[in-house]
Amino acid sequence: MLHLLAVLEYDGTEFAGFQIQTSGRSVQAELERALGEFGNGPVRIVGGGRTDAGVHATGQTASFKIEWTHDLETLQRALNAKLPYDLAVRSLRPVGENFSARYSARSRTYRYSVLNQPVRAPLQERYALRFAAPLDVAAMHAAAQHLVGTHDFGAFGTPPHGNNSVRELLRAEVWQVERNIYFEFEATSFLYRMVRRLVGTLLQVGRGERTAQEIEQVLFRQCRAVDAVPAHGLTLIQIKYDL
Amino acid sequence: MLHLLAVLEYDGTEFAGFQIQTSGRSVQAELERALGEFGNGPVRIVGGGRTDAGVHATGQTASFKIEWTHDLETLQRALNAKLPYDLAVRSLRPVGENFSARYSARSRTYRYSVLNQPVRAPLQERYALRFAAPLDVAAMHAAAQHLVGTHDFGAFGTPPHGNNSVRELLRAEVWQVERNIYFEFEATSFLYRMVRRLVGTLLQVGRGERTAQEIEQVLFRQCRAVDAVPAHGLTLIQIKYDL
Repeated sequence: MLHLLAVLEYDGTEFAGFQIQTSGRSVQAELERALGEFGNGPVRIVGGGRTDAGVHATGQTASFKIEWTHDLETLQRALNAKLPYDLAVRSLRPVGENFSARYSARSRTYRYSVLNQPVRAPLQERYALRFAAPLDVAAMHAAAQHLVGTHDFGAFGTPPHGNNSVRELLRAEVWQVERNIYFEFEATSFLYRMVRRLVGTLLQVGRGERTAQEIEQVLFRQCRAVDAVPAHGLTLIQIKYDL
Repeated sequence: MLHLLAVLEYDGTEFAGFQIQTSGRSVQAELERALGEFGNGPVRIVGGGRTDAGVHATGQTASFKIEWTHDLETLQRALNAKLPYDLAVRSLRPVGENFSARYSARSRTYRYSVLNQPVRAPLQERYALRFAAPLDVAAMHAAAQHLVGTHDFGAFGTPPHGNNSVRELLRAEVWQVERNIYFEFEATSFLYRMVRRLVGTLLQVGRGERTAQEIEQVLFRQCRAVDAVPAHGLTLIQIKYDL
């Protein structure tokens, strides 16, 4: 039995999410179906992150055990031939017996993309939220620094299974390239919808509706975070491991 | 009556082409429908270039006459609110009585995008052709220079309405940015499928299946050009006018 770690890329537009759903396509179901065609019996995966419906990934991970006697390059090619056009295995590597894509992860990094212009741009809006009003990028970056560290992020999201909502945000960056503004967050793990609510709240700072300092008031629940921005601007870009 | 030139952006994936078709969505029909909601009666457009099914545009143009008494910014915003998500008006400007988006054009520029890697990449393959085998970019660029100038390009495409197939290719460039290879061609006008057959033939040079000199043999019909590469890698990026 081989124990493997796969890095996955997918276009989330037509997925109902990463995890198997009661209705709608899931990344997990597509990958388990493809793996089932090669392994000796059904294969169950452990996902590194749980992305919502519409969220993309270039660095999602999954670990699984499979009976496979040929080389990994052949398995990767065979899987990519069986997977749908919007999901691919970027790499495969062997991992130890006790490895888990979920529990062995040191951090997850998400990037949110904003196209900051008033006019619609059909070729750029599949993977970015278009935002018409001018934004102060330096103010958003400064505000984001108030969030770095270990805090109760319950104001920005919901923990799974009623667990506690303390998380360690390792890094938060906001930068601009031409009309595109990128928000990048690295944390040990995130609460449900946390990245998209962080971005929504930072956009208020960028518009001058909140000061950088007021971000801390949201964190301390003295005022409310805004609703999540749309899923299609969000991409899970990396999950780090000690390997 | 105002005479206007619109610059259009569209994601060609779900269009059957620019021109009105007997079946399937067309850019022309969508734009004329939206214009008809604002003008005093139906509006007919003249397109700057004819893109095939699946071809994208950031710089397509259309000229049309319309009864409109408010400013152009208001018309642009109103049109973009009525147009579907995959089509937008990037700009609007007034033009002279005798202007034609088609006949006044000095040149058209198309860009073809190739993602040169063996592994599938779902987030990059909507607007680029993935090509697994290594490619010699310098050889493709050198070969493309043999095509620049005024030639009978009949070996690479079909002229509309049985007209002659002589065209002036003003510029041909092939360059690489990381895993992406771009082919850009500027000509006074192009034959049907010409850009995609030029790219297909240059890809043979990039793989070492033809020499740069053999491109001239194709041009002189001593050997055949290959079939067109897929439409989804092609974007009409600019149409130039003396304005």
